[in-house]
Amino acid sequence: MNAPQHDPSSVGPVVAQKARFDTPLKLRSGAELPSYELAYETYGTLNAARSNAVLVCHALNASHHVAGFYQNEPENVGWWDNLVGPGKPLDPRRFFIVGSNYIGSCFGSTGPASINPKTGKPWGADFPVVTVEDWVEAQARLADHLGIERFAAVIGGSLGAMQALQWTLSYPERVRHAIVIAAAAKLTPQNIAFNEVARQAIMTDPDFHGGHYYEKGVVPTRGLRIARMIGHITYISGEAMAEKFGRVLRRGQPGFDFDVDFEVESYLRYQGDKFSSYFDANTYLRITKALDYFDPAADYGGDLTAALARAKAAFLLVSFKSDWRFTPARSREMVKALLDNRRIVSYLEIDAPGGHDAFLLEDERYHAGLRSYLANIDL
Amino acid sequence: MNAPQHDPSSVGPVVAQKARFDTPLKLRSGAELPSYELAYETYGTLNAARSNAVLVCHALNASHHVAGFYQNEPENVGWWDNLVGPGKPLDPRRFFIVGSNYIGSCFGSTGPASINPKTGKPWGADFPVVTVEDWVEAQARLADHLGIERFAAVIGGSLGAMQALQWTLSYPERVRHAIVIAAAAKLTPQNIAFNEVARQAIMTDPDFHGGHYYEKGVVPTRGLRIARMIGHITYISGEAMAEKFGRVLRRGQPGFDFDVDFEVESYLRYQGDKFSSYFDANTYLRITKALDYFDPAADYGGDLTAALARAKAAFLLVSFKSDWRFTPARSREMVKALLDNRRIVSYLEIDAPGGHDAFLLEDERYHAGLRSYLANIDL
Repeated sequence: MNAPQHDPSSVGPVVAQKARFDTPLKLRSGAELPSYELAYETYGTLNAARSNAVLVCHALNASHHVAGFYQNEPENVGWWDNLVGPGKPLDPRRFFIVGSNYIGSCFGSTGPASINPKTGKPWGADFPVVTVEDWVEAQARLADHLGIERFAAVIGGSLGAMQALQWTLSYPERVRHAIVIAAAAKLTPQNIAFNEVARQAIMTDPDFHGGHYYEKGVVPTRGLRIARMIGHITYISGEAMAEKFGRVLRRGQPGFDFDVDFEVESYLRYQGDKFSSYFDANTYLRITKALDYFDPAADYGGDLTAALARAKAAFLLVSFKSDWRFTPARSREMVKALLDNRRIVSYLEIDAPGGHDAFLLEDERYHAGLRSYLANIDL
Repeated sequence: MNAPQHDPSSVGPVVAQKARFDTPLKLRSGAELPSYELAYETYGTLNAARSNAVLVCHALNASHHVAGFYQNEPENVGWWDNLVGPGKPLDPRRFFIVGSNYIGSCFGSTGPASINPKTGKPWGADFPVVTVEDWVEAQARLADHLGIERFAAVIGGSLGAMQALQWTLSYPERVRHAIVIAAAAKLTPQNIAFNEVARQAIMTDPDFHGGHYYEKGVVPTRGLRIARMIGHITYISGEAMAEKFGRVLRRGQPGFDFDVDFEVESYLRYQGDKFSSYFDANTYLRITKALDYFDPAADYGGDLTAALARAKAAFLLVSFKSDWRFTPARSREMVKALLDNRRIVSYLEIDAPGGHDAFLLEDERYHAGLRSYLANIDL
């Protein structure tokens, strides 16, 4: 037997899979998706007791490609590869790990760029507005498909964490542990405001064509670019930006023009350009709406304790002090509501500098906490 | 004698004036403005000793119209009317108050929409990038024109406060008191990042035409709209947004579309639409650059104490706890640097909820502080 050609702490080469569901999916909006596909990846093996499955939910611009790499694209490494792999906190030698994409995505699952069976053309603007609740419904069918009755854990950061939390509400019996990282139980008006500006940038781009740009052969890259730049400012803490870029001038002195002066401008333009080259505008609009709408307490008069009463899982929540998008205070609200319900709750507040993006970064204390929590899950 | 027809605490009907300067103005960039006009207003009377003049410097989207109203536009009330008027903290019965516009503005002073004498066409993209230092130079000539050798005080908030601070550095002998409100001695990379996204929104609007849109008969309103929406988020505190808008749904329930769902979206769209109907895009680009470049300590290796050593004025600084654009910590940096230089410094840190915009709002503690400080200025 040969040694693996790759880093032994990597899950190695992986293959994305797709599951197709032909039973219509009723959405929270009242609309119905006649059928859908979900893209997913798995790492490790489902044990005989089917008790070791962990669902990883992704955030805004990530996908089901959580760990490892594609054989023909060795540079395309999964977004949470620092967490998932042999010897890493989420270890495929112990867990059967499922990375699931969500409906509405532009990374392989049924979404706005998919063909609308009614018209034979891309859905475009007619693709329904999907919610976190809808994503959990769609993923529950994926779990059925994979023979997973109950997850050992559902884990995610940011929007992925909202899915993990929603799993405990939609399917209390199917989640033993929920790991909710860098999240909030609902967006603040300021969070919504940033999303709305991003949406307006996209929707007012002349290449948007009311969402039916696929058939025009154009892409609203200008709007996507601005949307991503706005997003990036909220993902990084002001302190981290100051540390990373300072007021360093790219040309050594002010240019007195509108080319790049400060390093931070160059960084934002680069991020915007890159994102607009691969992300779908209709998907971006829908993801931000899913974020805005997520508010499990809304049906309980704003009472989060009442809203979380039906959760049965044990919880680990993690927040980062430098995260100004979803501050630690937002995590503490959830911790409090869960404790009010006498749930088993662990909570880590990490003094990491990375801002909201810290959930994606390697930090010894953060990873040690996840490692410890995951190791203590009985299978 | 008839009683005034207006509120006696208003300066009443005012008339905007213009001063023309035909001596070329050398700019910080090295460019030269062959001639320029400055729009201004005055309230009160310059006393015989010429010792009671107060210069009011304005911020991003305001103008020389500081107080009172225009006879034919009674609704067009000055932007700082709550501060300036008989019986108000800055009282025209005692002070000769000058509201000065700046070069590059779109409110009457020479700016990008003005005619370039060399081409006979609007300057457009060819209008130079102007700085806070340049504005002070231009205003110093206005002071000469008005016969003001020395200001009793120069006052401003935000970008206006940067002008007030720069006055004490460019003309230490011409400023007795500087009132620097809601300001910072330089922008953080995060501040610059927000400005850069706004600029990119404007410059990538197809109606921008590289800054030469006047001759095309179009206006990059889409970009201006996004720029203003981004700005507004930074002017208001997250708490104030939460208090003002909450998560109230305009249609009572989620629309599952991209029309206005939350009140805060409606507010932002309204602000963006309004702004884009009157503000000039080339001016916006230049104002944000002036903000980005302002950094008096840059020539002193970042040493603010050294940079402020030449200031001779007495200072009042004011900050607002809810201001996350220029936090109180940024004001304290200036207070410290001035105290290091043994300047006379008063400092007020007001626990007002309005965010950065608090400097424009009426707040009893804030106004009482200004009233007290201004009343104590010997004339």
